[in-house]
Amino acid sequence: MLRQGALALAALALAAPGVAQDAVRSPGEIVATAPSRDWVTIAPQDLLVMTLAPDAEGNARKVVIQLIGAPFSQGWVDNIRTLAKAKYWDGMAILRVQDNYVVQWGQPDPGMGIAEKPVPDGLKVMSKQDYTADFAQGMFGRIYDSGGPRDEEEYVRPPMRIVTSTSYTTPDPYTDAWGFSAGFPIAMDLVNGRRKGAITTVPANAWPVHCYGMVGVGRGNPPDTGDGSQLYAVIGHAPRHLDRNLAVVGRVVDGIEHLSSLPRGKGPASYYADPAKRVPIVSVRLAAELPKGERPHFEYLATDSDSFAQYVDARAHRRDPFFVTSADGADICNIPVPIRAVAAE
Amino acid sequence: MLRQGALALAALALAAPGVAQDAVRSPGEIVATAPSRDWVTIAPQDLLVMTLAPDAEGNARKVVIQLIGAPFSQGWVDNIRTLAKAKYWDGMAILRVQDNYVVQWGQPDPGMGIAEKPVPDGLKVMSKQDYTADFAQGMFGRIYDSGGPRDEEEYVRPPMRIVTSTSYTTPDPYTDAWGFSAGFPIAMDLVNGRRKGAITTVPANAWPVHCYGMVGVGRGNPPDTGDGSQLYAVIGHAPRHLDRNLAVVGRVVDGIEHLSSLPRGKGPASYYADPAKRVPIVSVRLAAELPKGERPHFEYLATDSDSFAQYVDARAHRRDPFFVTSADGADICNIPVPIRAVAAE
Repeated sequence: MLRQGALALAALALAAPGVAQDAVRSPGEIVATAPSRDWVTIAPQDLLVMTLAPDAEGNARKVVIQLIGAPFSQGWVDNIRTLAKAKYWDGMAILRVQDNYVVQWGQPDPGMGIAEKPVPDGLKVMSKQDYTADFAQGMFGRIYDSGGPRDEEEYVRPPMRIVTSTSYTTPDPYTDAWGFSAGFPIAMDLVNGRRKGAITTVPANAWPVHCYGMVGVGRGNPPDTGDGSQLYAVIGHAPRHLDRNLAVVGRVVDGIEHLSSLPRGKGPASYYADPAKRVPIVSVRLAAELPKGERPHFEYLATDSDSFAQYVDARAHRRDPFFVTSADGADICNIPVPIRAVAAE
Repeated sequence: MLRQGALALAALALAAPGVAQDAVRSPGEIVATAPSRDWVTIAPQDLLVMTLAPDAEGNARKVVIQLIGAPFSQGWVDNIRTLAKAKYWDGMAILRVQDNYVVQWGQPDPGMGIAEKPVPDGLKVMSKQDYTADFAQGMFGRIYDSGGPRDEEEYVRPPMRIVTSTSYTTPDPYTDAWGFSAGFPIAMDLVNGRRKGAITTVPANAWPVHCYGMVGVGRGNPPDTGDGSQLYAVIGHAPRHLDRNLAVVGRVVDGIEHLSSLPRGKGPASYYADPAKRVPIVSVRLAAELPKGERPHFEYLATDSDSFAQYVDARAHRRDPFFVTSADGADICNIPVPIRAVAAE
């Protein structure tokens, strides 16, 4: 084992107060006892509620999606709000379920034997440059460097607070560095830059990551980037080769099982060959457009909080009694951001 | 972007003949045109056939598992063959389905309201040391180094042929290096050693990785290591914190959808709270114990073949027309080993 375990833990204790005392708490315990100030309410404007037809036993099926915030995928997210307000998806269906990959719904592709439905006016058109965001626009919590050994460095560029850290063994096969921004997993490129007069590496641009449960925008071959009328959710191992190739617009915060446990399609690319297998979509609405009594309420654990830092540490260094060996590392998609349902006010 | 893309491709072309000409072939095309000599038959002794009760529409449900070969998890795999021959699992059930995690079946835990069934005599007892194998016992194809930049090195220790390579940007958050052995994804530790008289790093021990579809052995808290009577299959993002903590004994090669699309359990840890939801297991048999006409036949793409090297390259460097940006990297669990069903002889 070539890693510097003891050194790594010391560096972490510095970065995340309270970790030393929490050495034996499981990730679940840390989340369960996080103070209420560390939880962030998801605004009704950012929640999309998809109601599917009831299942064979008559049980209701609702899938709730949190739309991603600025500066990520804003053109597509604007379009999705426009489409939801136009009730665009009502009466459409789940079209594709591919095992260990995606569930796809909405605007049918040409040749599927379904009439194309015109999209509402005013949808924005994005380019491939919009798959990434200028890093300077973002506000991040801690960033985990995927490069080689390097001293811990801190960049302070209001309103950002960034800590690159080697306190975890967190290399990433897909990118230079990663972190979490406003509750979403984010990857980024590093470029050479200046800090306190010295040449160093700084983040250049950033993009949301295709982890389990993330929602993206279907499209044709480039230069098409999709308008948001056809969406998919990841239901398998993170297909991160899709990062920067398709727009990530949010993630499922409740009801993923109503997508992930659907029968797999038997047609090409796992589209349903039999139209009768397609699950009907009753409606898709922004929570903000629902009557107050029908709105769902969710919170996420603030990804720039000490609780979240302790949770990341506990995911990377498993100390629960069940474990005999800690990996002393974790990949970004094996650190799901904790979400909880809360009662209406 | 700090990576050395052009250099990386040059190094790869050296390592994998034919890649240069295949620059625009997709992973699927490479697999579809791989010569028959690059496919390996899975022996009937290594195939486990689990027949579940038919689904609500009366469709048959068979799950086929390839058991892992030496030197990995041999005690547990021996037990599984013993249990199958004793028809141990016949009449048992799927007990647990947890979204983005595992499906679990077989021997019920105490307190589940199911009578415990005695296991057959002669099961082996393993220790936590058996979660890993001495690297020297294994035979590997190419190994992808997860460490920092290093020159390409080749170790030749018959019967091993190992190439550590920086031709892919393949760091791994969980371990020092990774590769594939006899069709299975394998992680390993590196330690300092000697090569041609010079100090260098060499693999020390190795273990199979919890990727999507892998099958492992349920257990209680340590020092219990499980006897193989309770099994699980991964149906979500690779839970690699389980590596070296539970025994990986194989992977599903056919019928994973009969597990992954089951309704999620609503009890603690997603066990089925309602016993009526448990899917009955009709039988579990080694293919070698089935009449010849009933045996399934599968092959995997030899992981030490040039075809497989080209496939890995194409997964890491996406050049299909659908893609606009290549990650120039891939994680071990996003490189599923290709499997195909073949007709009986």
